[in-house]
Amino acid sequence: MSRIYADYLIETPQSVEKAACTLAGEQSSGTFVKVPGESDALKERFGARVERIEPLDERDAPALSGSAVPADVGSVVYRRARLRLSWSFENTHANLPVLLSTVAGGTFDLSAFSGIKLLDLELPEEFRDVYQGPQFGIEGTRRLTGVYDRPLIGSIIKPCIGLTPAETAERVRDLTEAGIDFIKDDELLSDHPQSPFEQRVAKVMHVINRHADKTGKKAMYAFNISGNMDDMLRRHDVVVRHEGTCVMANILSVGLTGLAKLREHSRLPIHGHRCGFGALNRCDLLGFEFTAYQKIWRLVGIDHVHTNGLRNKFYESDESVIRSVRACHAPMFGGWRILPVMGSGAWAGLAPLTYQTLESVDLLFLCGGGILGHPGGIRAGVASVIQGWEAAVQGIPAEKYADDHIELKQAMEYFGHASRS
Amino acid sequence: MSRIYADYLIETPQSVEKAACTLAGEQSSGTFVKVPGESDALKERFGARVERIEPLDERDAPALSGSAVPADVGSVVYRRARLRLSWSFENTHANLPVLLSTVAGGTFDLSAFSGIKLLDLELPEEFRDVYQGPQFGIEGTRRLTGVYDRPLIGSIIKPCIGLTPAETAERVRDLTEAGIDFIKDDELLSDHPQSPFEQRVAKVMHVINRHADKTGKKAMYAFNISGNMDDMLRRHDVVVRHEGTCVMANILSVGLTGLAKLREHSRLPIHGHRCGFGALNRCDLLGFEFTAYQKIWRLVGIDHVHTNGLRNKFYESDESVIRSVRACHAPMFGGWRILPVMGSGAWAGLAPLTYQTLESVDLLFLCGGGILGHPGGIRAGVASVIQGWEAAVQGIPAEKYADDHIELKQAMEYFGHASRS
Repeated sequence: MSRIYADYLIETPQSVEKAACTLAGEQSSGTFVKVPGESDALKERFGARVERIEPLDERDAPALSGSAVPADVGSVVYRRARLRLSWSFENTHANLPVLLSTVAGGTFDLSAFSGIKLLDLELPEEFRDVYQGPQFGIEGTRRLTGVYDRPLIGSIIKPCIGLTPAETAERVRDLTEAGIDFIKDDELLSDHPQSPFEQRVAKVMHVINRHADKTGKKAMYAFNISGNMDDMLRRHDVVVRHEGTCVMANILSVGLTGLAKLREHSRLPIHGHRCGFGALNRCDLLGFEFTAYQKIWRLVGIDHVHTNGLRNKFYESDESVIRSVRACHAPMFGGWRILPVMGSGAWAGLAPLTYQTLESVDLLFLCGGGILGHPGGIRAGVASVIQGWEAAVQGIPAEKYADDHIELKQAMEYFGHASRS
Repeated sequence: MSRIYADYLIETPQSVEKAACTLAGEQSSGTFVKVPGESDALKERFGARVERIEPLDERDAPALSGSAVPADVGSVVYRRARLRLSWSFENTHANLPVLLSTVAGGTFDLSAFSGIKLLDLELPEEFRDVYQGPQFGIEGTRRLTGVYDRPLIGSIIKPCIGLTPAETAERVRDLTEAGIDFIKDDELLSDHPQSPFEQRVAKVMHVINRHADKTGKKAMYAFNISGNMDDMLRRHDVVVRHEGTCVMANILSVGLTGLAKLREHSRLPIHGHRCGFGALNRCDLLGFEFTAYQKIWRLVGIDHVHTNGLRNKFYESDESVIRSVRACHAPMFGGWRILPVMGSGAWAGLAPLTYQTLESVDLLFLCGGGILGHPGGIRAGVASVIQGWEAAVQGIPAEKYADDHIELKQAMEYFGHASRS
């Protein structure tokens, strides 16, 4: 029988071995006293196994409160370790809610730990019997947008909320005429009386389709369909009817089963917004690393996922962003690569660093203010970002490339000072 | 227009006022540079408002990493405060995924904060136009089980996983014959080849229904239907067909839209298991207080929810458990009370403390090992817990009540020493 593997970073005031066994027991067949029927054969078959323990450093103080300090020790130390556990596929079968409850359920509650974070997951191919994975991924998204050999350049409609469909469509016109590849709704906007979903789709797609008819270039617009199940499916169909090419869902808020149902139904790439993930990630010793988290959603079937950008205006370190982007690029089950969406304070000048660091152009490079706030206007904003990537890929310093690319030059002067203030 | 209110505990290296304004801006209409179209009228209508700031203490070190320290100050202090923000109902309308993304989305990512936790929510009645809330709640659950004037006494089938349907049914027979009110599947078990869902339901309900025919007492069994959308609805129907009276869902793993869809479909109480909530709660300055969190799920329509018990074997403090239980008891929209499920290391001897602390019997008191591990057997285990509650409600010390209640006496002797080891 195949096995499921999970890697954790842990901290414990107990012996690491004892804490690991507690986790394995609690998340498979245990309770706090021995009960009848927990036979050795049953334990062998369904018990989680401690596969590996890699000791790390020790601390004087716990990362989190609520751990149970052994009564029989004098001075307590909090031991950190990397831990690998495994379960038989029999424990969960291809049921993601049960898988999640198994590898990341009561897990976080255990007083054996003063810190526990799920770092990575390794899932057997049997999950493919039930879950379809990304329908489009990186390649399908490139095919739909006709953008190759460089990142997709994207933007967000701002202000996030409050515009009418006609006002939204005006901004879309500006962006498409400026040559943008991708536009998205904000995660805070879905279907509102101020911006009724179908009207927004109709007006936006009218602009995009007319521009495509004229120029052959069709921008991908990710309409935020997040909401209740039937509404999401209905909104998806509205997008299809108006020849839209992408839907967006706030994956944490919509949840696993809703997303899986959407994936079954969907004929479009699903743009996964991970808003709310900070609550699961920002504490160093609690929750999830994105490497583990995105695997669940990739299996469910998202095609794009937000990873944050380098030098982002949020809490996340560059090291963490790099790990996330590489995780999206790593094939799952021999394929199923998804498009990382790098944004937050992004602008033309970040392209060289991003390319040098990641050595990849398989990105959606999302600039809100970095395009909309360009002093030369939106057209100059889009041009500057494309120029920034041209310089990056050709290995020419941006300052030099800016000498005969005025939009990049303006961006460097303007955002180089303003963006991090 | 009605407003949505959210209370946060925050910590920031900046001025609290500035950080509060950043949060309000980012979670309504802002980006990092001023963009065209963000008019004052639009901001007034759709911008979030800082309603109240209540300064708390200051710290020398940040609770979380990743906050942006102002460049212009010498020594940094991290200021804590309680903050109240509000949004117009127009921002979200009755769309819970968008509401969640608004009050608890990018919120946690902001570098303006070195800590931010959502404490409470106040939602306008307009949400009732779309969400149905609990169908049974405390009163409906009492009606279905016939248990009044004391907590429902519950247990869990152990080992959690690995038993066949016939073996599960044997354990259910023991528990029902012992007079139990409620039994549940473990959150790690749903539909497995080892325990196919329909077979388990058939065998378990056969035992429960026969016992009910004979004695008039029908135990409520919460079958874990967690899984993909269509599977959950199908499993719900299986439970109905076999005259079961409850379904269970792992709410975090299933997610909001899946749960809302289940609620629309359901004819049974929904037992909400909150496994995984520790990842959102255990860090003092990140994520959610349960008071806020359960309101979302109550609106979606769960009838029961796990709150942990006093002196639990997990990380959670008694103070936190007490707040959670009281939150479930507090009416929402003038009604909609849900049944808190208190468990984790629970046994007879915890009844007096629980009753003295909460002054309520509107609880599901869930004992795994505290019943199954009773030295006198399961019947004695159930009897001991009922006796513990009789003593508690009558205000008789458990030790005294145990003098002529042998099962309670055995429990006090056995678990009084063993339960916290």
